[in-house]
Formats: sequence, structure tokens, C-alpha cells
Amino acid sequence: MKERIRTLKRALVCSLLLVTLAPRASAQEARTAAAAAVPSPRHNLMPTPSSVRLLGGRMKVEPAFSVAVQGHADARLLAGLERAVRRLERRTGFEFARGLAEIPAAANLVIQCRGAGPATPELGQDESYALEVSERQAFVNSATVVGALRGLETFLQLVTADGGGYFVPEARIGDAPRFPWRGLLMDVARHWQPVEAVKRNLDGMAAVKLNVLHWHLTDDQGFRVESKTFPRLHRMGSDGNFYTQEEVREVIAYAAARGIRVVPEFDVPGHSTSWFVGHPELATAPGPYQIERRFGIFDAAMDPTKEETYKFLDRFLGEMAALFPEAYMHVGGDEVTGKHWRLSPQVQAFMAKNNLADKHALQAYFNRRVSQMVTKHGKKMVGWDEILHPDLPRDIVVQSWRGAESLAEGARKGYAGILSNGYYLDYLLPAATHYLVDPLPEGSGLSAQEAARVLGGEACMWAEYVGQENIDSRIWPRLAAVAERFWSPREVRDVEDMYRRLEAVSVQLEEVGLTHRSYQGRMLRRLAGGEETRTLETLLGALRPTLFERAKHRPVTQLTPLTRLVDAAAPDSRAAREFASAVAGLVEDAPRFQSRRERVRALLEEWRGVQPAVRVSADRSPLMRDAVPLADGLAEMSAAGLEAVQYLSHASAPPPGWREERLALFDRVARTPSEVDFPIIPALRRLVHAAAEQPRLRTSSAAEWSAHVRALAEEKK
Amino acid sequence: MKERIRTLKRALVCSLLLVTLAPRASAQEARTAAAAAVPSPRHNLMPTPSSVRLLGGRMKVEPAFSVAVQGHADARLLAGLERAVRRLERRTGFEFARGLAEIPAAANLVIQCRGAGPATPELGQDESYALEVSERQAFVNSATVVGALRGLETFLQLVTADGGGYFVPEARIGDAPRFPWRGLLMDVARHWQPVEAVKRNLDGMAAVKLNVLHWHLTDDQGFRVESKTFPRLHRMGSDGNFYTQEEVREVIAYAAARGIRVVPEFDVPGHSTSWFVGHPELATAPGPYQIERRFGIFDAAMDPTKEETYKFLDRFLGEMAALFPEAYMHVGGDEVTGKHWRLSPQVQAFMAKNNLADKHALQAYFNRRVSQMVTKHGKKMVGWDEILHPDLPRDIVVQSWRGAESLAEGARKGYAGILSNGYYLDYLLPAATHYLVDPLPEGSGLSAQEAARVLGGEACMWAEYVGQENIDSRIWPRLAAVAERFWSPREVRDVEDMYRRLEAVSVQLEEVGLTHRSYQGRMLRRLAGGEETRTLETLLGALRPTLFERAKHRPVTQLTPLTRLVDAAAPDSRAAREFASAVAGLVEDAPRFQSRRERVRALLEEWRGVQPAVRVSADRSPLMRDAVPLADGLAEMSAAGLEAVQYLSHASAPPPGWREERLALFDRVARTPSEVDFPIIPALRRLVHAAAEQPRLRTSSAAEWSAHVRALAEEKK
Repeated sequence: MKERIRTLKRALVCSLLLVTLAPRASAQEARTAAAAAVPSPRHNLMPTPSSVRLLGGRMKVEPAFSVAVQGHADARLLAGLERAVRRLERRTGFEFARGLAEIPAAANLVIQCRGAGPATPELGQDESYALEVSERQAFVNSATVVGALRGLETFLQLVTADGGGYFVPEARIGDAPRFPWRGLLMDVARHWQPVEAVKRNLDGMAAVKLNVLHWHLTDDQGFRVESKTFPRLHRMGSDGNFYTQEEVREVIAYAAARGIRVVPEFDVPGHSTSWFVGHPELATAPGPYQIERRFGIFDAAMDPTKEETYKFLDRFLGEMAALFPEAYMHVGGDEVTGKHWRLSPQVQAFMAKNNLADKHALQAYFNRRVSQMVTKHGKKMVGWDEILHPDLPRDIVVQSWRGAESLAEGARKGYAGILSNGYYLDYLLPAATHYLVDPLPEGSGLSAQEAARVLGGEACMWAEYVGQENIDSRIWPRLAAVAERFWSPREVRDVEDMYRRLEAVSVQLEEVGLTHRSYQGRMLRRLAGGEETRTLETLLGALRPTLFERAKHRPVTQLTPLTRLVDAAAPDSRAAREFASAVAGLVEDAPRFQSRRERVRALLEEWRGVQPAVRVSADRSPLMRDAVPLADGLAEMSAAGLEAVQYLSHASAPPPGWREERLALFDRVARTPSEVDFPIIPALRRLVHAAAEQPRLRTSSAAEWSAHVRALAEEKK
Repeated sequence: MKERIRTLKRALVCSLLLVTLAPRASAQEARTAAAAAVPSPRHNLMPTPSSVRLLGGRMKVEPAFSVAVQGHADARLLAGLERAVRRLERRTGFEFARGLAEIPAAANLVIQCRGAGPATPELGQDESYALEVSERQAFVNSATVVGALRGLETFLQLVTADGGGYFVPEARIGDAPRFPWRGLLMDVARHWQPVEAVKRNLDGMAAVKLNVLHWHLTDDQGFRVESKTFPRLHRMGSDGNFYTQEEVREVIAYAAARGIRVVPEFDVPGHSTSWFVGHPELATAPGPYQIERRFGIFDAAMDPTKEETYKFLDRFLGEMAALFPEAYMHVGGDEVTGKHWRLSPQVQAFMAKNNLADKHALQAYFNRRVSQMVTKHGKKMVGWDEILHPDLPRDIVVQSWRGAESLAEGARKGYAGILSNGYYLDYLLPAATHYLVDPLPEGSGLSAQEAARVLGGEACMWAEYVGQENIDSRIWPRLAAVAERFWSPREVRDVEDMYRRLEAVSVQLEEVGLTHRSYQGRMLRRLAGGEETRTLETLLGALRPTLFERAKHRPVTQLTPLTRLVDAAAPDSRAAREFASAVAGLVEDAPRFQSRRERVRALLEEWRGVQPAVRVSADRSPLMRDAVPLADGLAEMSAAGLEAVQYLSHASAPPPGWREERLALFDRVARTPSEVDFPIIPALRRLVHAAAEQPRLRTSSAAEWSAHVRALAEEKK
């Protein structure tokens, strides 16, 4: 479904997104949500806890800060506490005393944990906690160690500072997750990610209370796990980029220490070219095979008619079942073109003999066999939508790209599921888009029992266009917004407030080593050949990388360096959001007209000013040539925006045809083929319309506006 | 000698530095050097090769770029070539064909290597190469694989771009190092650095042709290597932060692949508190011992009178001798206070019995015993100055903090030596300071045979104030300037040109993953609590962190978080250099008065403008309070500088007392205790003097100046 949703469903997805993305829509969304949301005071917590009460006081955080543990204490809890205290030290610059306070009553932060909980994280584990902060002490109270770890992250997010120093606001927090399955899929097959990258992303996940790493370990482009049983798999299928079993255990332990399950995926029978490099006998069509460098859906598929295939898979999955303690094993099961099956006389004969009508029936047969193996090895199976078939046991989990409705339908039939539709991070859409997708939206009509089968969701980081240098920026901070959707009450949907908190969380996420903000400077310095990069930063503030356009624009394979402007651009520009919001304010809320106008003008002038510097830079660095048409387009559009601001300021009407010309310019720029687009265009359009619709805004200052309103009122009398 | 030079020699060191640091001195230095230097065309190579001729043509680098190997080829060479090609891909954004070209005659880059050279890098290995670039092809020609690797780095540095695309200038380069021992000492004892940090710094070292990693593995604050013979050493002496032997082998192999030797240091008999945590029986004074958290020189020392000490060391050094293939082993031998020896009746009795007059004689006895072990285990010994003693074998190497003269004296006596005086990166001095220190300065009067005993030098990265987050910024890019001193001809000493090339190399160094530029944004975002960081960047541009003042200002231990403003500041500010150079131009070279004046004014206005933003920010982030007095001082000084610019512009004389007041202001700011200082003060002083010395510069434009000069000429007639 991964490719499918990209290709077949593209038109649908895009049109849906436009609705979501338009500033008007999201502003309205925000207002609606704010009205519906649980009234909560302003805090920087993400995900928002089930209940938060801030009581007005504050507990100071000073160099004498100390921690204690009451009740259950084990190595995992103490290590988690140690990590939290070290992060707080780095943030405050204070050196705290090492170890635990001897008298808990005197400690600032006391962990009261009632038991270990499962040593290996499992689905449905108790992650709840309470956090009470008085002016003297903070208590994290939980039934399990994982609950305590979740509470510690909330505590760290609560730490605030002002002129008086660091403090934690006095608070009563009760918290538990809405969904038990809250994951991130990391595709390490298409582009390899080393252990460090996986680890720091696990830290980031723990910081926003996610609990599943879905490790997409095999695909056409790479076989990324060491198999001692069939070493030709990783030796020949990975370019040497695979995890040793020792490293796998290390990652699992690292995740477990943070209450995160590691669900491995071995995608069969399609998406399996890399298996065939060392084991062509598994394939339907004869080899030899090479690691697939292109991206897309390929015809190579396992031969579901040979018993040898099943013997091989049984041994391999048995080996992996022993390596991964996790109860679930993901076997993919998606996107078989069926072409090689169709072309194989042997497969055709097998289908005829076994009454298998089509490729779906053949794949169902294959899945049933695989499911039996998975069960035999003591695991429950997870697969993409395609695996769903009445013959499969009821304890399987279906990962859905079809959406919440399809998930609800599955739930009614008794199948558990997780949602990934709407959470494809590789689409490079703004956080708001993913944030408003709900695995179990209001009005699903499910019974409580059925609703419980909607286990949660997973954000997917497919890695066609994601390298080691920029992966964190493709995951973060947007994943924090998705994490809130999976953890927090359904009613928490205020987009503006989400973005406000996301900014704060994004900086904190750097504490665990994530590179989602620091990556850009390095890439821009290389792009600009060491020149000043502020110009490029400004340019990128008006842009957004695209997924679909990119592939059309310039072919990319696994071997293409991902070092272009599009790779350095961030998916969710703060400047673009700020522009949209200032324009909305300008147009809708005239009393603050002047300050908004100045902000809009400043942004437009900055954008317009990028053009000459980019042109100079492109003469020194060929990679910068990508930026020239963008800077040109941006300059033209900004100039149009500035004209609009002028008309609005002087309350003068633009000449006939002005509006149409400017709108046509925006359309032309938007249509120019490119690897990026301009999220600022909707707001620019709005600005031009407003200028053309004088005299509704015929005023240039708050005072004048008030006078205008008074005059209108007089008229009405 | 590490602490000693910091404490006893501090006054001397500082006064020497002031001379070197004054912009006047370095500008003059630069001019002298430029006159003396080998005439070389403008290139971005660092270190500068022995001979470079650029011939005017260019070989294009395009997507069809290909490589070939003629003659010797082995896994090390091919891996190095592969790394180089991948770096070039990322820099250009091109996807090159994988593997080697089938027809070398058609390849763009051809490696002609005549043999493997030593498989394990060794002192004196042949690192020479020739690089010939025609418009069609480039050839790297070398006797050894390491020579080829050095040539590849030069090739990568040569790649240039302009509006026409990427290219390599047509060139004839012949190159070999001036010194055979060119190292970096990494102190991983005081602050731990993980394997990744060591590896990426090895890549950086290879990029600038350094060939020794001096791995300072043990000290009072940590025992960082696994000992299977005495596991209590690393288990109890490291807080769990140590390298397993497998990791050590991994680092050695990584270094060897880049032609870099790994010389381990086990510092005895002082600097050894961490050994005593698990093995108090080795110590002179009875235990128990704790890992030392403070920095300085401590009294704990091994007991040189017990045979058990030597038995222990013999077994331990034997284990390490087997682990490290390197021919040299560093045993420290520095900074024993002698206090515990003095207080121990047993030690005193031993000294009396063995006719050992003082602690130096006792330490010489100890060193002799250790030297015998090192020899027995097949290694040659390296130690700090203190080890030098007539009884020791002539093949030891002395690492000197005393300076080039002392080194030359040792060479006359027959001892080989390496220089570290002048290359202490932890002093956080500008690159120019280290750059102009020469291990073998002109006029040493040594014979060729004696001069050959000066093996080279090592830059030292002592880690009292260096954490994982900022270590790269404390090493890079300044180490590249030191690397040039060790590799390039003595005559290459043009400071301005060095800085020009250093900027280019600094960006390229990011290619191998070094974080010396990306670290700052992350630290500043945390400091500012997520607010805009450009203000802070501007502030830091006028500042420099200090080493000596810091410790006086605020105590720092191993456990203190290194997350303050001083930790984020870079040692060598480009803005400060630019300011000094613009002021010098303004004062000395009136025809370009106006453009210089505008640059000086712009910088001063930017600096003055920092104050309000910093004050607002400090109200939100307590860590930012460090910045307030700095921003205040900077604003006051910048205002004074702007006054000076005004007087110069209007050719008007300042009122009486103005100069004295402004100079007093600079003195007051300079004397304010702080963890940073203002490298811009000398240039500010110069500006104020120039304004006060009107009418020498009574002119505000080039035209006026020319008129003025003509008028003067008329007068003289």
C-alpha cells in the first residue's frame, strides 16, 4: 500500500490535503477545536495529558535539585531517572548532586512506582501516571516503570524558566494514553540508517510517549538484518549496510529501557528483491538478481508454489522470532504486481490445481502459510491491508492505508488494526495535516468492544528520499504532533496551540541528539560552497519540499546523493505559517492592521531580497542553480504582495486587471515544475483579493480604523 | 606538563600570545610571510603542498565522472577511493557510476600506486604523492597506499565550482610531508568521547593529512580502556564510559585505513587516581579512592617502591602492547607533586636506601623500570619532558611543552622529540597563534642529522572544558592550520591566506560528519529557550571563550554541564577578524576609506543592536543572564567605536578627554571578570586613536583623499 497510495490514490490525497492546508480551513478548524477542547491552561506539554490543572504556584529548580525513589526501584527506572536528571542539568546548566536523596521527604522530585510492569514492553502495558507538583515537591506516581518514565518526560516538559529562574509550575496531572499502539515506522531498507540514528530516534519517541518502533528491515533495496541461518541474505543484499544480531539486541534493549516495543518487518512475498540476490531460488522468475536501486513497485516476488520457499521462510522467521522478543511480527504482504506469477507456467499450474482464482487468492494462500509459521514460532502476525482474509486467525493486526473508516469496518468484523493512512511523514506535509487525522474519529458508531480493536496508529517514514543527513528533519518535530493524536484525548485539536507547543518541544528534542534543526546549516553551507547561508534560510522559509513532484522532476535512485536544496528544505515552514497568520489577521481583524501589515511587509521584503544573493551564489555553486528560478518566482510574487500591501495601506484601489494579473502570476509559479512548492501562495492570493476588494479595508492605522467604524456607525443612525 | 604550562607558565604564555594576537602584529607577519613564501597561485589547499603549479586549464567534473586504479590495488586503497568518490558525489549532487572504469585511459581520475607500504601505519612511512591534472584526466601517483590517500584528499580539496560547473584546475602538484609525526592528542579521560566522535575526528585528521592519534586513555578523571587482565580498572574507574577492546580494535582499524597511527597513553605514575579506585594497592597513600571529579594536579601517585606496582604494570602494559599494534607507547610521566611520596615513611626509607636524592630521582628510577617493560613488550617509549634522563634508551620520543628551543637542545643530545608547546587547542586561541609556531624554526642551527630528530608535533585537545557536544568546535577548523604547519614547507606562513583557505576547508570538513559548525545552533537554541538565535550569534561574533578566566570565574568539575554561553562560543571569530582587518584598512589605506568605513560601521551597529534582545531573552532563560553584561559592554564599546567612525567621517576632532575616556572604557570591559573576552578591543583602540589623531585621516571619501594627497604633494614642491 505504500507505493499504491502514492500512485493510485495520489489525486485523492492531494485534493484532501489542499482543503486541510488552506490557512482559512485550518484557522477555522482551530477555532472550532478551541471551542470543543477541554479547557486547559497554557502549557508546553506534548502530548497533552488527559487532565492538567495548573494551580498558579511554582516549584523552583535550583542547583540543590534532588531526586528520590519510593516503592519499587529497579535498574530500568533508575537509568531512566538518571537520563532525565542529566537532561535537566544540561538545560539549566546546574550541576546536581549524583545519586538519590537520602531522605525522600526532602527531595524535589520523588518517583513513587508500585511495580516493574512487564520487563519486555508489550501491547497494552500500563503507561499511566500521575504527576503532582507542589511548591515544595513533585511526585510521579505510577503502577509500572514505564508509567514512571512517561511521567518523567512530562516533568521535563513542564520545566519552565523566566527572569526568576527555572521552575516547575504547581500542577495536578493525571494521564494515560488513548491508544495502546503508538508507533513510528522506520524504513531502513531504501536508505540505510546506522544504529546511532535509530537510537536517537528512540529517545525522541520516548520524549513524546510513543511506544512502538516498526523496523522495516527488508525491501527490494536492502536486506538489513544479519541472518546466521542464511548469511547470503544480508551479505549479498545489503551493500554491507546491515545490523548485526548483536546490534539488533542492543537496539531492542535500548528501546525496552524506554518502554518501546520493536516490531520487525520482513516484507514478503513482494518487496523482496534483496532476498533474491543471495537466494534466487526463492524467486518466481529465474535470477540472477541485483539489489534494486530504483524506487517503485517491482515484479520480483517469492514463488508461493514451492515448498522450499516455505521451508526457507520457516527457518528464517524462526531465527528472527528468537532474536526479537516482541510478541508481534510484521510480514508485510503488500504490493505484489502478480506479473511474474502470471508469466510462470509452474505458478499458473499450481493455481489451477489448487483452485486459486487470481493473484489475490494465491497471495492469501501464501499468507495463510506464513501466518501458520508465525504462530508456530509463538508470534502474532501484523501485515498491510492485503493480508486480511477470513482464514487468518483473529489475533492478527492489520496496518491500514485505507483510512479510519476501513479500520472501523475491520473492527466491526473482529479484526484489530492500526492506522497509517494520514501519517505518511515522507509526504512532507505540514504537521497540521497529520494532526487532524484521527484513528477513531467521532461518530464512528463502533461499540466499546469494537472501538477497542482500533489499537492506534503508526507514522511512516518511508525512505526513498531520506538520507542519514536529513532523516531527523523528515521525522521531527512533526512526529510529536502525531504522537499527541495517538496519546491525547480526541478533543485536543487546536492547530494553533499545537504549533505553539511544537516549537517548544522541537528545541527540547534536540537534547536527545536529534539533528532535525542542526542538519540544515550544514547542508546549506555545502550547497552554497561555504558562503553565507542566511539568504538560503530565508528562501527555504517560503518553500516546502514535495514528494510527488520530485520524482517527476529528476530521477532519484538509492544511489543518488540527497544533497540538493529540496533535501535541505524543511516540510513545515514557520515563516510560511507566520505569513498566513499575519495575512489572515490583516484581512479579518483591522484593529491590529498596522502591526500585521508591518510583519507582512517585512516578510515579503525579506523574500524579495533573496533574489540577487541567490543569483550571485549560483555562479559559484552549480547546486545552487536549483534556487535561481525559485528565488525569481519568489521575488515576483513578493513584489505583487507588496503592491497589495501598498493598496491596502493607502486605501486606494488597484487599476483594472491588476488582481487578475497577479493571480495569474501565482498560478504560473505554482504550476512551474519543481521539487518544491510555495505554501505561501494561498495567503498571497488572499492578500491580492483583499487589496482588490477595497474599500472594505480602507484604513491604514488602528486610529483611522476606529474613526472609520465610528463614521459608519454614525451613518447607520 | 599539561597543568604546569597552564599554571606556572601562564604569564609567559599569555604575554607571548598578546604579541601574536595583536592585529597589527599578524598583519605585519602576513606581509613578511607573503614576501618570503614560495610564489603560489590562489588555491584552497590545506595543508599547502610542497609544490603547486596551476596551469590555467580545467578538468570538468560531470555526472559521467569515473575512477580507475593502475598498478597496486588493495582493499585499503579501494575503500579510500570509494570514500573519496562518495564525498564528491555528495558535494556535487551527481550520482556517479559505481565501481572502477573498465578502461583506465578513459577515467577522469586514475590512481597509480606502486605498492602497499606498511599495512599498519608506522613512523616514517612514505606519504608522498604526485597529482597531475590535465584537461582530460587526473593522476594520483604514489609509492604507497597511504601516499595515494593523501593525494586523494588533495584532489578533493582541488575540486572547485563556478557558473560553468564543477571542475578541477589543471595542475602539477608534488607533495611530501615536512615532518613524519603529525598528531592530535584527544583526552578522553577528563570528558568521555564515544567511538563515533573519535572516528569522525579521524576522518577530519585524514582530510588534512595528519597521521597520529595520541589517545590519552587514562587520567585522574577516568580509565577509558577495557583491561581483561585487571577489569576493576575500567569497571570502577570509568563510570561505565570506556572502550571495549573490540572498540579499540575498531578504532585502530579505522585509523589504519586512513594511514593514521594510534599511540595510546597510559599516564603513570601521577595522573592515576582512576586506577586506584579499583586498585588502591598501587597507590602511595592508602585508599579508598574515588574517581577525581575536579581538574588540576593531584597528589595521588603510584608507589614506585613496591615490586607489586611493577608486576602489575608489566602485566597491564603487556596486555595493552598486544592490543595496540603501534610501535610507540606513551607512558605520560608528568606532574607528580611528590607530596604522597614525601609523607610516606616507606617511600622515604626506599629513597634513602637507594640513594635517590629527591622526587625527580625517584621518578627517574620509576621511569627506567617502566621503560624496561615497554622495551620488553616490543615497544618504544614516549613520555612528557619529565621522562628525559640519561639512563633511558635513545629510541624514546620526548613530547615537549617547553618549546622548539628545548626540542632542538634535545635533538643535539641525540633525543627524538615532538612539539606540543604552542599547539594546546584547549587554550581556545585563534588559529593564527598556533599556525605561526614552528617545531623547527629557521636558524635553529641544527645539523641535518640533528634536525631529523625533530619528528614533528601534536596538537593537544585537553578536555577539562570540552564535552561531546562541542569537542569538534574546539578542534576544528583550527587543527587544519596546525596540520599545515606540520606538513607544509616552513615558508608557508601567510596568515591572511591561511584564514581564507581555512574557511573553505572548514566547510569541507563537515562532509565527514564533524559538528564544529552545526553544534552552535543547537546550543544557542537551548540557551535561548527556543527563541531566535541570530542575536546570540552576533554577540558571539565579538567574543572569544577563555580557558584561564573560566576556572576563576565559576568552578567546573567533570560533572558540570558544559552548556553555557562560553561553551557555545567559537575560539576564532570570523567577524572579529573581519572587523580588525576593516579597521586596519580604514586607518592605513585611505583610498578605500569609504567602503571600509561602512563595513566597520555595520559591524558596530550590529553589535550595539544586540543589547535589547539579549535583555529580553534573559528574562525568559536564566542561562542567558551570562550574556547580559557582555551585551552591555559590547553596546557601550560599539557606541564608542561608532563615535570614532563619526569623527573620522566628518574629519572633526573629538573633544578633549574623549580618547582617554573611551580607552578607559575598553580597559574596564577587558578587566571585567568573565568566561569570555573581546578580541575586538585592539581594533577598537586603534579606531579611537585614529579618530583622536585627526587630521591625518581628515577625509571622508576616496576622491577627497586623492585631493588631499595631491594638495600635500603640491605643498612639498
